[in-house]
Amino acid sequence: MDSLELIKSLSQPSPAKIVLLVLDGLGGLPHPETGKTELETALTPNLDCLATEGVSGLAEMVSPGITPGSGAGHLALFGYDPLVFTIGRGALEAVGIDFKLEPGDIAARGNFATADQAGLITDRRAGRISNEKCVELCRLLDGMMVNNVKVLVRPVREHRFIAVFRGEGLSAGVTDSDPQQIGVAPKPVTALKPEAAGLAEVANEFIARARKALAGQHPANALLLRGFSPRPELPDIGKLGKLKPAAIAVYPMYRGLARLVGMEVLKTGSSLEDEFATLKERYNDYDFFFLHVKWSDSAGEDGDFERKVRVIEDFDKALPGLMELAPEVMVVTGDHSTPALLKGHSWHPVPVLLCSRWCRPDSANQFSETACLGGGLGHFPATQIMPLAMAHALKLSKFGA
Amino acid sequence: MDSLELIKSLSQPSPAKIVLLVLDGLGGLPHPETGKTELETALTPNLDCLATEGVSGLAEMVSPGITPGSGAGHLALFGYDPLVFTIGRGALEAVGIDFKLEPGDIAARGNFATADQAGLITDRRAGRISNEKCVELCRLLDGMMVNNVKVLVRPVREHRFIAVFRGEGLSAGVTDSDPQQIGVAPKPVTALKPEAAGLAEVANEFIARARKALAGQHPANALLLRGFSPRPELPDIGKLGKLKPAAIAVYPMYRGLARLVGMEVLKTGSSLEDEFATLKERYNDYDFFFLHVKWSDSAGEDGDFERKVRVIEDFDKALPGLMELAPEVMVVTGDHSTPALLKGHSWHPVPVLLCSRWCRPDSANQFSETACLGGGLGHFPATQIMPLAMAHALKLSKFGA
Repeated sequence: MDSLELIKSLSQPSPAKIVLLVLDGLGGLPHPETGKTELETALTPNLDCLATEGVSGLAEMVSPGITPGSGAGHLALFGYDPLVFTIGRGALEAVGIDFKLEPGDIAARGNFATADQAGLITDRRAGRISNEKCVELCRLLDGMMVNNVKVLVRPVREHRFIAVFRGEGLSAGVTDSDPQQIGVAPKPVTALKPEAAGLAEVANEFIARARKALAGQHPANALLLRGFSPRPELPDIGKLGKLKPAAIAVYPMYRGLARLVGMEVLKTGSSLEDEFATLKERYNDYDFFFLHVKWSDSAGEDGDFERKVRVIEDFDKALPGLMELAPEVMVVTGDHSTPALLKGHSWHPVPVLLCSRWCRPDSANQFSETACLGGGLGHFPATQIMPLAMAHALKLSKFGA
Repeated sequence: MDSLELIKSLSQPSPAKIVLLVLDGLGGLPHPETGKTELETALTPNLDCLATEGVSGLAEMVSPGITPGSGAGHLALFGYDPLVFTIGRGALEAVGIDFKLEPGDIAARGNFATADQAGLITDRRAGRISNEKCVELCRLLDGMMVNNVKVLVRPVREHRFIAVFRGEGLSAGVTDSDPQQIGVAPKPVTALKPEAAGLAEVANEFIARARKALAGQHPANALLLRGFSPRPELPDIGKLGKLKPAAIAVYPMYRGLARLVGMEVLKTGSSLEDEFATLKERYNDYDFFFLHVKWSDSAGEDGDFERKVRVIEDFDKALPGLMELAPEVMVVTGDHSTPALLKGHSWHPVPVLLCSRWCRPDSANQFSETACLGGGLGHFPATQIMPLAMAHALKLSKFGA
């Protein structure tokens, strides 16, 4: 029995509430001058108080040494093994703009590009056209019908867009048209298995028609597609856990990921305060909340140690409003580490703090990478965060009579 | 996706260098008088300095409670699950004398033995003949051609030798001729599956001709073969990790194991100093080095606590020469524990120390079993040492976009 089947077989509904607070890119590395990480540098009296009462540990998102992308990190937090449930490039791009992929859809990542008169690619990014131009071009291509398949085209940013193929019986398993180099023509899309022949034909016809439609749009007179992939099939988190789950996230990628596992995505504003206000307003309507804080990761990616510290401090200041609601279980963690020193995601394990009336406390009296190292949850796979949260909310029955 | 596929899909070449230093049988047990293990007793200022800056932990080589042989321990260190990638008895014996097994070869472990006039075995070890005699007898049998199969015979030690069957289409899966007792005749080699019939025929014919050749060589007038096994199929570590790997080892077994995973085996001398000198000389030619130190294990096997302490101290004294080269990642560990108190390999987890600019330091300020217990790497499977080393050398890209 795998972990998800186990949870499904043991979960039971209850009014108890679980709040999963994800500080994106939370884990860090010590500042060379102080020897303290971003989390250790931040003044976090509320988190430290929760750490004293709660239990903490360090989570491996994928496996030791592996740096997770945002999709993989969040799947692990939601309880899905990211090595089993993978999300293709096109599907992740669609999720990233919160496009509602339907079962059967095949999504591809697209680039507007520049081709010369011979049809050879001279710029794979069409000179990085503006967002406005991208929107305009997508409108031009959107909605084409090819062999009863509708092609939905949506802008991402600059030269980037998605093309979603929606129709009966489409199967992924086709090659990219993007040659990943300049000076050559785009490649024909070819089927890697017989059942993908239909998609290959539709994709090639779409590309041919799109080329005509883009003929006068130099430098964006060509397009390249890659990473054709279906909507990932993820078991519904609400059904697995007998939960009524809601997601609060400012950035589309995280709303999209939450929607993929069946969470209801709540309308919110654009700030941390907005997110916490939404949680408070809708607190009675759900029993599981995923609240995503993006700015810790953005600061880490920018290499801005101090800004990441401030995001963590702002988060800490917002906590008392939530603590007043007294959810049965609160988890504070990240989806991966983003040390400002590395200016990017990293493989370092992620601090986890779990608070509940029913946790067995450990000796940690602050929330920090160092304190988590000796925490009661130990060093454990992130896919176990959900079972632990549900257990502490008394939502899992006994295994075996 | 399994761990090796994951590494293969994420690894990227870089000039960063990784040095894996293996002190054979490193882990120990406390001396009854002092309560300190061999590693804890040794004065190791350099290792302690590295432990202060780096991150440490305890590795399980196979799984808790399982005592690894040298082959299993090293496979785990190189990233291969020793429960998946097994090495047969004959193949390991061949590897142990650094015999270059080729794909398709089948190796058997051999004993020279004594048979009476009725052909019954009276001594399975032929009175433990001298190494010189063994060499002489192997020369007598080496190179026979049987049904287009060449039989290569090489001495190991005393009564022990290997027979390697080299030819087209041979398949292992045959029984031993060694009856594992005296007073009975050697057994015929029989095929356990149809495709092994050819090997069984060749082996029996070889044994018959060898008996004739040995007729006048009493007490070594018979031979027993067991553990027929192919060269293990191990993915190439250089291809998996996009590394240029080299091995430095004085003892043939470890050179053989390194060669099996595709490392280039460097010529070196017979001492620790020679090994470190070789590493320094060839430092610019490779980006991954495996350096094997045998003497800690030998001392443990002899039950010589003090000698094992001195080997560790000698190793520590050699470190500054390596530290000057400033490899991006250094790992110090063992392939298993060999506590002097047990006079043999043991199941106890093995101390691991990883140093890199990018490690998240822990509170350990010495390299010891006790300090490793609270180390930042935690208690983890040894197969994850390679991914961790590669991550800290920034040789692994992100998993998922």
